[in-house]
Amino acid sequence: MFGRAAQRRLSLPLKFKPAPVRWYASVPAAQDLTVHGERLWFCINYVAKYSAPSPGGVTRLCADENDKLARDWFRKQVLQLGAEYSVNATGTQFAKFAGEDDTIPPIAMGSHLDTVATGGRFDGALGVLSGMEVIRSFREQGIKTHAPLVLINWTNEEGARFFPPLGSSSVYAGQSSVNEAHASLSNDNVGVTMGGELARIGYVGNGPNTFEEFPLSAHFEVHVEQATDLEKAGKPVGWVEGWNGISYHEVVFTGEDGHANTYPMHGRRDALTGAAKLIIQLETLAYARNGYTTVVSIESGPRGTANIQSKTKLVFCLMHKEAEGLENMSADIARSIQGVAAMHGLDYSLNRLIHLPPGDFWPEAIDSVRQACGDKGIGSRTGTGHDSTMTSLKCPTGMIFVRSRGGISHSAKEWSNEQDCAEGALALGRAVLNFDAHLKQP
Amino acid sequence: MFGRAAQRRLSLPLKFKPAPVRWYASVPAAQDLTVHGERLWFCINYVAKYSAPSPGGVTRLCADENDKLARDWFRKQVLQLGAEYSVNATGTQFAKFAGEDDTIPPIAMGSHLDTVATGGRFDGALGVLSGMEVIRSFREQGIKTHAPLVLINWTNEEGARFFPPLGSSSVYAGQSSVNEAHASLSNDNVGVTMGGELARIGYVGNGPNTFEEFPLSAHFEVHVEQATDLEKAGKPVGWVEGWNGISYHEVVFTGEDGHANTYPMHGRRDALTGAAKLIIQLETLAYARNGYTTVVSIESGPRGTANIQSKTKLVFCLMHKEAEGLENMSADIARSIQGVAAMHGLDYSLNRLIHLPPGDFWPEAIDSVRQACGDKGIGSRTGTGHDSTMTSLKCPTGMIFVRSRGGISHSAKEWSNEQDCAEGALALGRAVLNFDAHLKQP
Repeated sequence: MFGRAAQRRLSLPLKFKPAPVRWYASVPAAQDLTVHGERLWFCINYVAKYSAPSPGGVTRLCADENDKLARDWFRKQVLQLGAEYSVNATGTQFAKFAGEDDTIPPIAMGSHLDTVATGGRFDGALGVLSGMEVIRSFREQGIKTHAPLVLINWTNEEGARFFPPLGSSSVYAGQSSVNEAHASLSNDNVGVTMGGELARIGYVGNGPNTFEEFPLSAHFEVHVEQATDLEKAGKPVGWVEGWNGISYHEVVFTGEDGHANTYPMHGRRDALTGAAKLIIQLETLAYARNGYTTVVSIESGPRGTANIQSKTKLVFCLMHKEAEGLENMSADIARSIQGVAAMHGLDYSLNRLIHLPPGDFWPEAIDSVRQACGDKGIGSRTGTGHDSTMTSLKCPTGMIFVRSRGGISHSAKEWSNEQDCAEGALALGRAVLNFDAHLKQP
Repeated sequence: MFGRAAQRRLSLPLKFKPAPVRWYASVPAAQDLTVHGERLWFCINYVAKYSAPSPGGVTRLCADENDKLARDWFRKQVLQLGAEYSVNATGTQFAKFAGEDDTIPPIAMGSHLDTVATGGRFDGALGVLSGMEVIRSFREQGIKTHAPLVLINWTNEEGARFFPPLGSSSVYAGQSSVNEAHASLSNDNVGVTMGGELARIGYVGNGPNTFEEFPLSAHFEVHVEQATDLEKAGKPVGWVEGWNGISYHEVVFTGEDGHANTYPMHGRRDALTGAAKLIIQLETLAYARNGYTTVVSIESGPRGTANIQSKTKLVFCLMHKEAEGLENMSADIARSIQGVAAMHGLDYSLNRLIHLPPGDFWPEAIDSVRQACGDKGIGSRTGTGHDSTMTSLKCPTGMIFVRSRGGISHSAKEWSNEQDCAEGALALGRAVLNFDAHLKQP
């Protein structure tokens, strides 16, 4: 049970009304499950307090002081719930709970507690806290799964402070190494690394880093939708069938130094003007290929008052639903970069930093979520990468979307209501039970 | 005389060959003047060593460690030459030398020892060191002027580290105050001020800050041309008749936060895309109005990996030869900003930071320089602001241009040869003598 001591520490109301969330799912144990929507809502708002000043929103950057506080809170909660707790080298927190057969790899519920600099209280935290609510509800309702369970708080999903994103789940999936993740540099150019900052807050541990060290039977994640399909369909939840393709590119244009007010316009090699042309071409590319394009970072120098800009760096991302569309976009923009460089007399370097082709989650995991959602849900796709995109490279993975107002995220305006969040947690618990039943089958 | 001890300290050759620079100017004393071109060249290269690592160039930002070393060197030199030395509240160094009649305000020779981050060894330093060479040559040749002389190293002409530029000369001319200059913030956003940094290096003094406290009879400045008029005309020097108009503007576009990969393209309020449109319109404006336009700074946020940019700041400058042209450019771009903001759903603020209408130097000062240059020179104009642009608001002011290769400045490629630099210093000395003769007239 959710203990009295913990309730006091959290200033929780001593008695929870069971949330009125209940519907038929595919296996009997799942059908009978309920969750405490009010308790989940309390936790969402409680954890949101671990934030730098961020009017109306949340700023909890990877390995900052508030991330440390949120991690400490997570640790206390799961230890009170009886977890076997560990932290791995990239700071990811694992809370394992015994099943009937602990020889089976655990079923995971995971997401991330870090946010972007202009974040809300749902992106990431909803997934971790929904998993915690499921653990509590299982205990209160005497539900013991066949497989063990593990609740995971993945490190640096967002990449907002340290590039690249999916900082720990990519190591888990063999797409990166602990050393590479530790070497991730901060985006603010102050020269700190993720490894150094994790060590500073005391979150470099000796827990498992890879799937091979710690295999999972499955990974389920609740996340706000960040789009408007559910809102338009009038549904609180959705099963996520797969993800769109995204790629990140860095281009550095190098021109020539010169005096802003005296050097003739003709003959200038202005890196920033070239970069501006490329930004326009990226916008045009979204029209031409029906994808998404976004410049997420620009840096230019030299700093000063009267200098032509001789070096400008852009980082941009491309998104397309289809692999071919994404490749076409990459090829188009590479040609545009050549053209801009030629027209403005610039040198350039172009590097693709991240390439995530579109893909589908595992059918048995999607089925577990679809059955859990029942007629409260619809099928959907995600436009971006998640920790689940990484685990899906290794084990059955499914995601549950929760309706988000206006599809807005990475913003103080990010919002999902209490009832919808409870529906998401319930769907998560039911999906886990459905998948657990699937594992029990001979 | 240039002393033996000083020669040793500077590792100067013990004997200088008189530079073969000599021609007819308007007054007899000026006609007979020579300067030590080799000594000037030595000093230019000596002072260039006071620099942060800057391959082939010079990086000596206002009030940094190297600026302190250059200032210390200047102080030692002028004290050895017998100057009455002072430093004012904004760090400007004055070295005053007696004339025949010290009741007359001194004739000044001044420029600046600070550079931009990607600077060369001539912009600024050539003016200060040419003045120092003139002082030395006058002493060696027994020339005593009617008016006293003052050699000036103005602070933060460039504005490369602290905005705005002309940091001290604008206070001298009553266009700013000591407090405002001290509060100038560093462009690198670390939050230091010019006043604080000047205090740190020990260069906040109690010398005169304004024309009213320390009137000048005239101000003369040697400077590299930063354009190609002299090069094209095959002339080493030029008399500067005036300056083109320049203005600096800051625009901040504010859009809305959102997720880069999931938020629909339609409805985005992307501040950086808007800023890119404006950069293109600034380029078009240069075509349309036959002026110069340059974006000298861009900052955008939030930092991160998957955020639509919600706030982007640009600082840009406009240059035009005519006042009406400059006003037209300002009006055109203000309309463009409104259009960009409307099309992209952005809020904006626009501030004109600096406005320097085109103007002419004082006829008697120009005449003194023209006579000094003789047939070695042509008339020219400067495309940007100098400390002389500020002194010209208060007293007769003239400038001498020295031919610069390719018109390149604010660059490691900035170059004027030894002979041309000597011609510039000689023209400076002769201009001072011509003007001094003019002062003596009843």
